Amino acid sequence: MNQTIETILNHRSVRQFKNEALSDEQIRTIVQSAQAASTSSYIQAYTIIGVKDPVKKKKLAEIAGNQSYVEENGHFFVFCADLYRHENIGRWENSDVIHSLESTEKFMVALIDASLAAQNASIAAESMGMGICYIGGIRNDLEAVSEVLELPDRVIPLFGLAVGYPAGDSSVKPRLPMGAVYHEDVYNADEAGMRAELDRYDETISSYYHERTGGKRSDRWTGQMAKMLSGKKRMYMKEFVQGRGFDKR
Amino acid sequence: MNQTIETILNHRSVRQFKNEALSDEQIRTIVQSAQAASTSSYIQAYTIIGVKDPVKKKKLAEIAGNQSYVEENGHFFVFCADLYRHENIGRWENSDVIHSLESTEKFMVALIDASLAAQNASIAAESMGMGICYIGGIRNDLEAVSEVLELPDRVIPLFGLAVGYPAGDSSVKPRLPMGAVYHEDVYNADEAGMRAELDRYDETISSYYHERTGGKRSDRWTGQMAKMLSGKKRMYMKEFVQGRGFDKR
Repeated sequence: MNQTIETILNHRSVRQFKNEALSDEQIRTIVQSAQAASTSSYIQAYTIIGVKDPVKKKKLAEIAGNQSYVEENGHFFVFCADLYRHENIGRWENSDVIHSLESTEKFMVALIDASLAAQNASIAAESMGMGICYIGGIRNDLEAVSEVLELPDRVIPLFGLAVGYPAGDSSVKPRLPMGAVYHEDVYNADEAGMRAELDRYDETISSYYHERTGGKRSDRWTGQMAKMLSGKKRMYMKEFVQGRGFDKR
Repeated sequence: MNQTIETILNHRSVRQFKNEALSDEQIRTIVQSAQAASTSSYIQAYTIIGVKDPVKKKKLAEIAGNQSYVEENGHFFVFCADLYRHENIGRWENSDVIHSLESTEKFMVALIDASLAAQNASIAAESMGMGICYIGGIRNDLEAVSEVLELPDRVIPLFGLAVGYPAGDSSVKPRLPMGAVYHEDVYNADEAGMRAELDRYDETISSYYHERTGGKRSDRWTGQMAKMLSGKKRMYMKEFVQGRGFDKR
């Protein structure tokens, strides 16, 4: 196993960081790594906002549900889907691009582009001994996030990425058994097989929580998912996304 | 610069592969790397289909616009957004999850999850000396792809990933200047500044094409984007996505 794969497999979310800001050089390396990711038809449909202003960080932490690690970290990035550049280009080039920009296809492209870039940034940071945590919590209120970061239309914040040197330990969380996630040639939709696989996974997860909480927790994964998904969370999203000019047709 | 960052910055799309199939061990390492990526609230909302059947590969290559490297590679993965598992879990646990599953929020979560996983897979493969190419072309006809891979509802193929040992050379394509993609604290929406930055980038890209084609091509990036986006491509996407149970509310 090479060092890169070791870094990848060793990933855990870090939620406590040393009070040590990343240098400009480190930030540059992370952003350049992000930019090196593949991009659909060279479109590069994303923007990264690095947040240094403590007032803005505090506000973002509140939006994300008072997660202290949004405020306290080495650096905080917000990854955005961005077609604002392309709208401008359409105007400069007298080209009718709006139909495309507002399509579900381009919404997907921008999300995929931004996510590939973010994962490159994460791996780059982790390879330098830092820890990372994705912050989906900013999606609690994207209107407010857009205000904090002064985002124009055709730009949507997708998630934050807290980066820094880990303070304290965290552990690798077991993933679904490979057989549940990886199929060959066709999707194996057999319910009994899936259930058997997820039953085994539930046992793994129960033991994981049991061990780490001295017996206080023993959640099953399927139980967590059923509970989480029964909450009607962030149902404003469709309206917000379309209001910003994405996913309209 | 460490080896991982070197691998990341050295990325180029590879479109010609040696006739050498990946071993099961290599496939396992790549899938495990994919699975190690962060996942929103532990949801793991994706599935990866490895396609070995030459008839299926041929069909996918046709769908993608007769791209030979979809057929000829070391291995071909299709990354899918997947909430089918979670629909089943809802039923097993007597939990009303449908509202959540059909939300734009969860559509975004599934796309982001799948993309983070795919980028880990890519970096893992590249760290082992392989090359990769994302195949957005499968989105030309997702109905047909779903048929080939026998995908149930609540599963959407997003893109392919061709992996294998490179045959022949390809070069790193210059990305947008960092200043165009990375902003600090607020989005810099100043049009004149953006235009100046993109003018400089256009010169870089023109030289890039000029050098590589012996003067035959000298496209500007903005010109490419204007042209590409004026085409109303894959406008069936919204209907398809909603038909499969995503992004409905």
